[in-house]
Amino acid sequence: MKRAIVLLSGGIDSTTTLYLAKKQSYKCSALIFDYGQRHKKEIRAAVEVAKRAKVAYRVIRISLPWKGSSLLDIKKKIPINRKFKGIPSTYVPARNTIFLSFALSYAEATDAEAIFIGAHALDFSGYPDCRPEYFKSFQRVVEKGTKKKNIKILTPLINMTKAEIIRLGIKLGAPLDLTWSCYKGGKRPCGVCDSCRLREKGFLRYNKIS
Amino acid sequence: MKRAIVLLSGGIDSTTTLYLAKKQSYKCSALIFDYGQRHKKEIRAAVEVAKRAKVAYRVIRISLPWKGSSLLDIKKKIPINRKFKGIPSTYVPARNTIFLSFALSYAEATDAEAIFIGAHALDFSGYPDCRPEYFKSFQRVVEKGTKKKNIKILTPLINMTKAEIIRLGIKLGAPLDLTWSCYKGGKRPCGVCDSCRLREKGFLRYNKIS
Repeated sequence: MKRAIVLLSGGIDSTTTLYLAKKQSYKCSALIFDYGQRHKKEIRAAVEVAKRAKVAYRVIRISLPWKGSSLLDIKKKIPINRKFKGIPSTYVPARNTIFLSFALSYAEATDAEAIFIGAHALDFSGYPDCRPEYFKSFQRVVEKGTKKKNIKILTPLINMTKAEIIRLGIKLGAPLDLTWSCYKGGKRPCGVCDSCRLREKGFLRYNKIS
Repeated sequence: MKRAIVLLSGGIDSTTTLYLAKKQSYKCSALIFDYGQRHKKEIRAAVEVAKRAKVAYRVIRISLPWKGSSLLDIKKKIPINRKFKGIPSTYVPARNTIFLSFALSYAEATDAEAIFIGAHALDFSGYPDCRPEYFKSFQRVVEKGTKKKNIKILTPLINMTKAEIIRLGIKLGAPLDLTWSCYKGGKRPCGVCDSCRLREKGFLRYNKIS
């Protein structure tokens, strides 16, 4: 049976990606990161999703003491009602490169043939490490820097809108009700951070097209 | 003053690289990894080197529970008196990609303009992530996946022999006496693992050419 590592953040995108990988007959292992986020809600959501999906999962704890992001530094404010221009303060330097490098190590050590990541570059916050050209460059790192060489970095959602991702997730039976998007860790989603707004926009459009 | 992150393992190569970066007028921050190695000797050596060099340093602890290397898995044997052919069991999947990704995050968050890594591809163990083409591919990841884009990955030793590195280190006043190379963590170096043999070969040739 072909095996895959799936990066799981606890949001809609990675949850849908996990269910897509399962649908494509991969035996999946989910990789969840505790990297000093402002809150643990998304980590708990990711664990719940992995359990519901009945896949193996690991929570990897890493420390980024230099922070460099409002997602990690509670002294900085999370931007609200932002115009989606430029790279916001929630960008975490090299986050996807760190996540992918751990996933690559895991994949190579356990003979997995693919790494799934739910990044997309349409309804997104403008992070450079979510764009197709970034993933192409990381694929070269796999080819040049590993023994196995042919582990594939798969980004099946890369050209999808949030509404299309939600539609796909629902079609696949992904437990979107368990997911958490808000950058803040309040009792309820704040509704005004980028992540909340993209989620809301996605559901509104999904309701229109459904 | 220009700033650099220097990956420091506690061996000859990274120690020489740190002193070279200092010589080139970089204000250096050393990044040391505790990644589940068989022993802590090299970590202590790296800390001693950083102190002697009077540079800031951070020890980052990471967990690679899937292991995939005889350097991490005490149930596996470290190869001894090996013919230097193929990739040995001491290869750690994606190790340099993980180290560079943290260094990249650190560099971007703190406005450093360069990352130094003491890899070289002549007297080496055959690890794929020590070859020039690998570092070129990682440089593309920097360009495509970060906000700052222009952080340089510098590998000044890449085409040097071990003897040449030792000569350079001594010339720069690098405290090679503080370094540790042996893969095992005994009281004294074992003398027969790849790392001991490359070190010995380097010093023997250095003595001949000096």
